[in-house]
Amino acid sequence: VTSAEQKRAVVDAYISGFAEGNAQKVADLFAADAIIEDPVGTPEKIGREQIVAFYQFSVGSGAKLELLGEPRCAGAYVAFPFAVKLSMGKMKQRIEVIDVFKIDEVGKISEMRAYWGQENMKAD
Amino acid sequence: VTSAEQKRAVVDAYISGFAEGNAQKVADLFAADAIIEDPVGTPEKIGREQIVAFYQFSVGSGAKLELLGEPRCAGAYVAFPFAVKLSMGKMKQRIEVIDVFKIDEVGKISEMRAYWGQENMKAD
Repeated sequence: VTSAEQKRAVVDAYISGFAEGNAQKVADLFAADAIIEDPVGTPEKIGREQIVAFYQFSVGSGAKLELLGEPRCAGAYVAFPFAVKLSMGKMKQRIEVIDVFKIDEVGKISEMRAYWGQENMKAD
Repeated sequence: VTSAEQKRAVVDAYISGFAEGNAQKVADLFAADAIIEDPVGTPEKIGREQIVAFYQFSVGSGAKLELLGEPRCAGAYVAFPFAVKLSMGKMKQRIEVIDVFKIDEVGKISEMRAYWGQENMKAD
């Protein structure tokens, strides 16, 4: 199990990858056989190729992430509340999300589950 | 799958059960064979008896819960950030937590996982 510091560093790198528009940096935080469920209840994306494609799309959309509270580290996991901020021309949207990352022994994300629903999307 | 409204009502009832010091009200929100992992990474409590004992202890401690952001509903789950506020004589403590509830078809909590670590505990 990685330390709380290591887990928080992964969260920081995830957020800064979006801030820098660097999809590769974000995708590189994941293990080769990682699983993404975003939002929870939809089909999982599994493995390198699908994860790279997912972040090329989502980082490429210009989305920025704002941390809304301290990351909570527990066992192999870190959970954190944040907002996704999106601009589409004059339209600005904000989605409040909670992500849960499972972090493996070498500090890579092996599972990512994103909790959010339609009620968490608002004009910003 | 229950609606987002039903899931949020469960979260509200959970928080108000603590506010009222009513452990039975909180325990009654759970299915008979529910699982609690609090914090994540520690042994699970399973079933009615263990759940009632857990809430008699935690509600009985006088802990109050403060919601720190909107609940996020996704699939069968609802995740929400909150603070646990504890008083022990003059000592006041605050723990920032994220809970994830799985809600079954009849609106009961079938799984509860609480994400928090030592770094999330502070003098208040």
